[in-house]
Amino acid sequence: MGMQDAIAILGGTGDQGPGLAQRFARAGREVVIGSRKLDKAERVAAEVKEAVPEGKVTGFENAEAAKRASIVILSVPFEHTASTVKGIKDSLSEGQIVVSMGVPLATAIGDGAVRTMGVWQGSCAELVASLVPAGVEVVSAFQNVSAHRLRDLENPVECDVVVSGPRAAREKVMALCPLVPGLRAVDGGPLSNARIVEEITALLIGLNIRYKLPEGLGLRFTGLPD
Amino acid sequence: MGMQDAIAILGGTGDQGPGLAQRFARAGREVVIGSRKLDKAERVAAEVKEAVPEGKVTGFENAEAAKRASIVILSVPFEHTASTVKGIKDSLSEGQIVVSMGVPLATAIGDGAVRTMGVWQGSCAELVASLVPAGVEVVSAFQNVSAHRLRDLENPVECDVVVSGPRAAREKVMALCPLVPGLRAVDGGPLSNARIVEEITALLIGLNIRYKLPEGLGLRFTGLPD
Repeated sequence: MGMQDAIAILGGTGDQGPGLAQRFARAGREVVIGSRKLDKAERVAAEVKEAVPEGKVTGFENAEAAKRASIVILSVPFEHTASTVKGIKDSLSEGQIVVSMGVPLATAIGDGAVRTMGVWQGSCAELVASLVPAGVEVVSAFQNVSAHRLRDLENPVECDVVVSGPRAAREKVMALCPLVPGLRAVDGGPLSNARIVEEITALLIGLNIRYKLPEGLGLRFTGLPD
Repeated sequence: MGMQDAIAILGGTGDQGPGLAQRFARAGREVVIGSRKLDKAERVAAEVKEAVPEGKVTGFENAEAAKRASIVILSVPFEHTASTVKGIKDSLSEGQIVVSMGVPLATAIGDGAVRTMGVWQGSCAELVASLVPAGVEVVSAFQNVSAHRLRDLENPVECDVVVSGPRAAREKVMALCPLVPGLRAVDGGPLSNARIVEEITALLIGLNIRYKLPEGLGLRFTGLPD
């Protein structure tokens, strides 16, 4: 498969990254894991292949991984977002889509994950959009999907994914959601709505703590047409 | 019934207020409608009684209405929040609970309802908390409940209500939610989480517009224990 079909997941060594990778690989999509260090990326790729033996999964340094996919998903802690985007900038080319799933949790400054910090650009996604080269579109998605449930391959992930960003790119990312059983894409409109969607993650983390649900809650909108 | 049982809804002339009033009245709770003008309050009370003939519903000016209930729900446009609270301040007494359901929608400055404004205190609910007398507790709730669905008395309102604020007061407001069929109370922790819950309303309004759903979406958390 060529550039059209692969999905790159940078920071595939984090919380949600490997889970998403497993799900996409299981759905038959080629997955490229990116990390700051090649050996880490290769190790995670091997782990994903162990969970999904039929999967087509490889590991590369971030900049190399970013060249190998039309859709590049950023799954790095918020505090590594800017440096990661700067590091792959020269690898990105017109028409590529960068997906921001980061949340400015206050853990970035040593405070708790139930709170967020203000981002000058408005959201993590808009920070990313301010850093990518012209012609590269940024879409916000997947923030509210539980990492634990993603990795639980035998069960669906009951969660709506609010996808926001420029229309054509947004629709391409929305089309990825049904690859994961239980995920439903919801049209989240312009990228600035990431400000709200990112905050919801902090609310969910608080609920997970209060209700003692390490597997993590999901989110559904009621009343949406099928 | 005395002060313990009545629920006051100030700004019962707005969007969600009359719907909540109808639902609480139908559940057998005494409802006191408050408005800036007595004749408006009385008119809305009469309309609620028309929808719920068995209901115990009266209308008063805001300050008088606030004296008549242990739980006082503020259902006024964001831009009238501070003036309403200042106007009822002398009527509030220790042990009463004020429920903030307002959202700092940008409509307050002539911009759209799909966006919010920053509030110095962090949220509309925290603005209210900064204005009430000592001993009065403020709880955030009901922001995300569709006004249209509240008024559709023959159908349940499929929506979770994130309730946040000081624990004892929060639990009392959580206990109100099941009075409305379909509403489920979710423990939203400290009042500062209203910052997130209020934002969600703007996201829901945007979704209602994009999906052309004037009746309004609801919200459910998946994976919560029953």
